[in-house]
Amino acid sequence: MKKSIGILGGMGPLATADLFRKIVLLTDAACDNGHIRIYIDDNASIPDRTAAILQGGADPLPAMTDSLRKLERCGADCIIMPCNTAHYFLPQLQALTKLPFLSMLEATAKACRARFPGKTAAVLATRGTLAAGLYQRALEAESVPFLIPGEAEQDALMRVIYGGVKAGSPPDGYRADMASVLDALTDQGAGYFILGCTELPLAAQALGLTVPVADPTSELAKAAIRFCGYGVKPEA
Amino acid sequence: MKKSIGILGGMGPLATADLFRKIVLLTDAACDNGHIRIYIDDNASIPDRTAAILQGGADPLPAMTDSLRKLERCGADCIIMPCNTAHYFLPQLQALTKLPFLSMLEATAKACRARFPGKTAAVLATRGTLAAGLYQRALEAESVPFLIPGEAEQDALMRVIYGGVKAGSPPDGYRADMASVLDALTDQGAGYFILGCTELPLAAQALGLTVPVADPTSELAKAAIRFCGYGVKPEA
Repeated sequence: MKKSIGILGGMGPLATADLFRKIVLLTDAACDNGHIRIYIDDNASIPDRTAAILQGGADPLPAMTDSLRKLERCGADCIIMPCNTAHYFLPQLQALTKLPFLSMLEATAKACRARFPGKTAAVLATRGTLAAGLYQRALEAESVPFLIPGEAEQDALMRVIYGGVKAGSPPDGYRADMASVLDALTDQGAGYFILGCTELPLAAQALGLTVPVADPTSELAKAAIRFCGYGVKPEA
Repeated sequence: MKKSIGILGGMGPLATADLFRKIVLLTDAACDNGHIRIYIDDNASIPDRTAAILQGGADPLPAMTDSLRKLERCGADCIIMPCNTAHYFLPQLQALTKLPFLSMLEATAKACRARFPGKTAAVLATRGTLAAGLYQRALEAESVPFLIPGEAEQDALMRVIYGGVKAGSPPDGYRADMASVLDALTDQGAGYFILGCTELPLAAQALGLTVPVADPTSELAKAAIRFCGYGVKPEA
């Protein structure tokens, strides 16, 4: 019996649409009926995760729990979240349900080990994700060497995420910020970049980036497809 | 109080992702929390609508009703369907619920009248949609002149939809078929093209089409954004 996916989304909405699209494109299906059943709650009312972790902002757990219950009632067989920072709350959410959460960070760390052996990853993520040590722990568990941005690069990255993608701004407004981050980390020895905030694969696409990257949204999509008993397209 | 959207999807999955993405991109929002709450059931088990209308294929209503109930329980305030052919079943579905269905065909016909006054539309749609007279009725209600493809063009169009987009094939496989349809209808006096199957905006994008078009997926997205009390982005 094949399984279905529940997407606890809205963090952010465009990243949720990106994850959905990647699942559809990466599923090895020859017609509509060959695809996975997917339930999505694109819940735009979930408070900002980085603000909650770092600045005592509104707790996102009640709104996330509301979405979890709705996805359970729909009949989802697993839950995925297209927001790296939201994974800070994964242990608390997992304790509320029997449905398995599939971790985007674990899927990404495993993919990094397989695809970039011996190379050093630069982790591009929100301040909240980094302060919580989410990627550091996931990469250490897979013995993947990594470095994280310094203060100035992190400021520039937050402008790309919040002032750029989340605000729906055109890419020319954040091109220079993104270039400064990539240049600084390359100088420090980065061999590839983990796009560890779900807005960043969107920024990378809009900017036409050609540096080697690990895309956590794609890795989570593939992990979910396999969990549900479907095939991942060979060319992916 | 702003409203939420329920997307009765899976018809097809990529078209559902396209509608979702267009709603997000067309919503005038400055941050995640400025967006609309959207519930999606991407129900890949819904039987083919054209086969049901024309060939006595499996009835899609039970699976569509299952999705409707799930979206109701989530708390959706309106229902939209990213499948033109599925609108054949809209009156039967509407009779089952108090939630309003927003019609993609009505939204498109109104947009055609406003954007292309005096010009003749060519309706590109599935054989099921055309046989059911869905676009013919919607366009006549808005006094929009139109023509529909002949048999050979309709065969080519079905290959684009089923053998191309729904099968996940690369665009070069259906480029010639699409060109033959557009050329024939232009010769007959078409001033623009209604991409009246939700796979066709995807085909148009993949092929880089530059002919003037009405995109029902975008028109439905805008109608839903306005229904929910949000603004449509000015540049859209």
